[in-house]
Amino acid sequence: MEPCFDIAHLAHVEMYSNKFEESLDFFLRVYGLTLSGQDENSAYLRAWDDYEFHTLKLTRHHTTGVGHIAYRASSPEALDRRVNAIMASGYKTLGWVDGDLGHGRAFRFQDPFGHTFEIYYDTVRFTATGDQKPALKNIASRFHGHGCHPRRIDHVNLLASDVAEFRRFMETCLGSRVTEMIALDNGRVGGCWFTINNKGYDLACTEEHGRGAARLHHLTYATDTREDILRAADIFLENGVHIETGPHKHAIQGTFFLYVWEPAGNRVELANAGARLILAPDWEPVIWTEGERRKGQAWGLRTIETFHTHGTPPVQFKGD
Amino acid sequence: MEPCFDIAHLAHVEMYSNKFEESLDFFLRVYGLTLSGQDENSAYLRAWDDYEFHTLKLTRHHTTGVGHIAYRASSPEALDRRVNAIMASGYKTLGWVDGDLGHGRAFRFQDPFGHTFEIYYDTVRFTATGDQKPALKNIASRFHGHGCHPRRIDHVNLLASDVAEFRRFMETCLGSRVTEMIALDNGRVGGCWFTINNKGYDLACTEEHGRGAARLHHLTYATDTREDILRAADIFLENGVHIETGPHKHAIQGTFFLYVWEPAGNRVELANAGARLILAPDWEPVIWTEGERRKGQAWGLRTIETFHTHGTPPVQFKGD
Amino acid sequence: MEPCFDIAHLAHVEMYSNKFEESLDFFLRVYGLTLSGQDENSAYLRAWDDYEFHTLKLTRHHTTGVGHIAYRASSPEALDRRVNAIMASGYKTLGWVDGDLGHGRAFRFQDPFGHTFEIYYDTVRFTATGDQKPALKNIASRFHGHGCHPRRIDHVNLLASDVAEFRRFMETCLGSRVTEMIALDNGRVGGCWFTINNKGYDLACTEEHGRGAARLHHLTYATDTREDILRAADIFLENGVHIETGPHKHAIQGTFFLYVWEPAGNRVELANAGARLILAPDWEPVIWTEGERRKGQAWGLRTIETFHTHGTPPVQFKGD
Amino acid sequence: MEPCFDIAHLAHVEMYSNKFEESLDFFLRVYGLTLSGQDENSAYLRAWDDYEFHTLKLTRHHTTGVGHIAYRASSPEALDRRVNAIMASGYKTLGWVDGDLGHGRAFRFQDPFGHTFEIYYDTVRFTATGDQKPALKNIASRFHGHGCHPRRIDHVNLLASDVAEFRRFMETCLGSRVTEMIALDNGRVGGCWFTINNKGYDLACTEEHGRGAARLHHLTYATDTREDILRAADIFLENGVHIETGPHKHAIQGTFFLYVWEPAGNRVELANAGARLILAPDWEPVIWTEGERRKGQAWGLRTIETFHTHGTPPVQFKGD
Repeated sequence: MEPCFDIAHLAHVEMYSNKFEESLDFFLRVYGLTLSGQDENSAYLRAWDDYEFHTLKLTRHHTTGVGHIAYRASSPEALDRRVNAIMASGYKTLGWVDGDLGHGRAFRFQDPFGHTFEIYYDTVRFTATGDQKPALKNIASRFHGHGCHPRRIDHVNLLASDVAEFRRFMETCLGSRVTEMIALDNGRVGGCWFTINNKGYDLACTEEHGRGAARLHHLTYATDTREDILRAADIFLENGVHIETGPHKHAIQGTFFLYVWEPAGNRVELANAGARLILAPDWEPVIWTEGERRKGQAWGLRTIETFHTHGTPPVQFKGD
Repeated sequence: MEPCFDIAHLAHVEMYSNKFEESLDFFLRVYGLTLSGQDENSAYLRAWDDYEFHTLKLTRHHTTGVGHIAYRASSPEALDRRVNAIMASGYKTLGWVDGDLGHGRAFRFQDPFGHTFEIYYDTVRFTATGDQKPALKNIASRFHGHGCHPRRIDHVNLLASDVAEFRRFMETCLGSRVTEMIALDNGRVGGCWFTINNKGYDLACTEEHGRGAARLHHLTYATDTREDILRAADIFLENGVHIETGPHKHAIQGTFFLYVWEPAGNRVELANAGARLILAPDWEPVIWTEGERRKGQAWGLRTIETFHTHGTPPVQFKGD
Repeated sequence: MEPCFDIAHLAHVEMYSNKFEESLDFFLRVYGLTLSGQDENSAYLRAWDDYEFHTLKLTRHHTTGVGHIAYRASSPEALDRRVNAIMASGYKTLGWVDGDLGHGRAFRFQDPFGHTFEIYYDTVRFTATGDQKPALKNIASRFHGHGCHPRRIDHVNLLASDVAEFRRFMETCLGSRVTEMIALDNGRVGGCWFTINNKGYDLACTEEHGRGAARLHHLTYATDTREDILRAADIFLENGVHIETGPHKHAIQGTFFLYVWEPAGNRVELANAGARLILAPDWEPVIWTEGERRKGQAWGLRTIETFHTHGTPPVQFKGD
Repeated sequence: MEPCFDIAHLAHVEMYSNKFEESLDFFLRVYGLTLSGQDENSAYLRAWDDYEFHTLKLTRHHTTGVGHIAYRASSPEALDRRVNAIMASGYKTLGWVDGDLGHGRAFRFQDPFGHTFEIYYDTVRFTATGDQKPALKNIASRFHGHGCHPRRIDHVNLLASDVAEFRRFMETCLGSRVTEMIALDNGRVGGCWFTINNKGYDLACTEEHGRGAARLHHLTYATDTREDILRAADIFLENGVHIETGPHKHAIQGTFFLYVWEPAGNRVELANAGARLILAPDWEPVIWTEGERRKGQAWGLRTIETFHTHGTPPVQFKGD
């Protein structure tokens, strides 16, 4: 398939929190995002080099998890093409919404597992003023050095009971490519890593083991260096944040990672992929077998149980 | 402009050396590339995660400089589209060539300043065997840790007497986008940074001050971390390589850089851009004025004279 | 000479500022020290892993420069031995002072160039309470991640018109060892690096070219990594701090360095020496010639003019 | 206690290998030490900035483990003082030996658990010649960048059935200080970290759970950065070396660590302590309880079973 990217990039994720104030404090003071604005139920946050108004919409909610996942189209025409493809696909559509503080009208639709997606083109660029103004005009806002200070949103990981079906959804609706995947011995797809541009992935989907619906596995921001992640581990430790696993390197995608749980229980990651990019237009998906997965992470770390079971919102599940 | 990338990425650069053996030894033992193959006059080299057979074609020649610059198209159809656009453009074309050890038939053309470009789709993927086989199947070959061990080719910087005209050439022939540029007080364009994908740039063109033609300013490979570049500085120092400037951070593109001269005099760089990507489909070129440039590099380093004057092949120029 | 260390370590430096509020804001918010206490004219600051109450005493003064340099003795007996050696030395003594918020009685004396030194044993250990309490009990206080967050005081660099004479003073009064030095072609000593323990140096003295007396060249804190220093450069840049030179690596001592001027003009450095220690009891001073110095810093950076001329307090000097 | 260091530093360790050629290949090609010389049964190895002829004596043996541990005294007089103290101590002495390729006469003695120690003053400094000669004269030999290229020997970890008794041995014979220790709920000492200079530790002793005698837990070299250790993990992975645990950060001593098993089964570590030094002459040992240890390593990593059971030479032990 020739990559003619109608969709430009993962734009933002709406995360639900039932401990809104604690979650907001975590993302601002510890994780190191900045606040672009707030409305009645949501705070709009971004990393220092995210060019849009927000990449995280944190919403006060009765539970945790993901509200919606947004991608920005490459042009108005590309947006139309995508909307037509989605309407023709038979997947559930929710129609156009007005957008919010961060962007204009957006078209909403759902995957078969209940996650809501939206695509839009008209956006609100973040305009750095005052002490947000950077010394160098080619970054979106000042490097503030607060908290873990990731540079930009990187990817989101969702849970689905049928990853192969989720893959069809992503290819049909967004034109995403699969760069890596897990093939289980039982013939099922254990996980899929998708990209819409030159990143190794901007969305991952792994198999739901908790009988939950529309669940979030984690949301990730990218740091410039691996040292930033080692420092982040110290910052999480000093702030009493639950470090679930890491820092270590994933065999899949080769990402250097660190996973923590924000105060409401949503899993968030900091990741660094070094200089890796997927530039080959004819990249063939890398397929990992269960046997290969048994070797653990890149350097041998065992994957801990909660990583297979914990998602948000929580569901009744032994071991979770 | 909507990015529908007919061209996938910068593929390889042919560099001329009039000290072939010394240059080859430098690139293999010190710079840390590996040898994929050789023919009568050329050695084919790649970084450990370059997926193609080669990204550097080092050719024995009576002088130094650049032989040709190659881009890979996104598909056979995209290649045809580009060839038609180039033939319609009026720029000088050299027609189809058979390709070499590293790829199939390629279409060649020239910019108005004498640099030869080629585009192709059919390629030779590097197949890692024996002790080149990586422990993790999602990288192109084993991480060998030899020399400075950059991960992949990053960009090339050419010299042209009229950068504005060079920009028209890049936009017309390759569909490249300008991400950053220098606007001189005299109204001329001092430099342009181009990209064909989500990298900040894969080719830069700066103004020729040496009355030379078709000259190379430098060729660059990307490292995973800035620490790799600090280590590389020690390795260059211990191997008696001329370190021209760096390590330091460019204000333009925010690249952490280190420039050295390989034994024949061609300037080569190691660079790391952290997690920076150009994801905005409607990115507006960042324009740097002469006044802003006077501040030096990002952290204040003065740009040294040879950086403005030294290119290959050399020309008579006071100060060079 | 057998190292039987009567003196344990460089303890603190008193720095004068004629812009006290700006200097204090710089050291707390940008440089990343924390405030232990204040009295009428001074603020007492420390890095997050400094075990004493303070390592920087910042004092409101009519000019800039250094107030005094303090070393802590290894024991009460060692303190007595040193005091006797100093009194017998003929160097100017100022007698015992009561100490301040940070330590008990101290014995004061002066080098022939007007710098005031003090040695003491009784100290005030920093006791971390509340949100200064670290998650790990083997560090002196919480890793806060604010500003450039150096780990501990590292060294101070003084100016003297006769470095050879200054060396006699250090060996006689403190029992310091010279680890590296500069031998000028004119037979004079251009600079000396002294240590009292296993660090490469805790005090350096370089030749005064400004006809000043009792001047400070710079004060330095140590970071855990070189990446911390690259990040610090971004933080200084974003905060409008004058970056004089660096980041780069000194040939002498191999220190990775970054020099800035705090708001009042005192030069401060951040440095990282990697895993280097001087463990050999019979270490012979490394002697650098003028010819070797002409190669510039480790990776070739030219030493800029102000580094040779700027000291505090300022003196009339062309080029300063 | 006043530190008047008769002993200057840990000098070298003799490691036994029953797979000598494989072990030697590992230490030279993968771990990144260099060969200073060989005699009939031993190879003498050093890191690039170790100033002595060797810091690792690798000896062909019928089993694995540690041959002897050597410390260098601060002076001939200090050596005599130590020998007298040891002879008066009642601990088993083996008398003077002639030394080997790396140093002069040494006095040998044993701890109650069968480990052989030696102390000496006369040494053989490594003289860098030819392509070992560094570009900068203040390092012991060229930075070669081969393998994991640690900078210097750091520490050794021994196993003893009674750590409290081992502590008495270290304090009596070497004058070592305890910087950190583990106090078990059963009143026993689980582990002790000793230093003879300003390092956090140069020798650790942890409780023997394998009913073995004179066993080695691990030998460690220090890298300049944590990134060096992340890179080392890739190098170990690519070379099929068994990575036991890490990279991660120890709560005790705050060391960033990576443990692997060399081909014969001896555990070797790479470690980086950042800028941490023990400078306080009156440092009080940090005491960790079993409850605190249950939190795992600094960032929460569980300590894996083999770390408690595997030592060399191996003994019959369930779980080993």
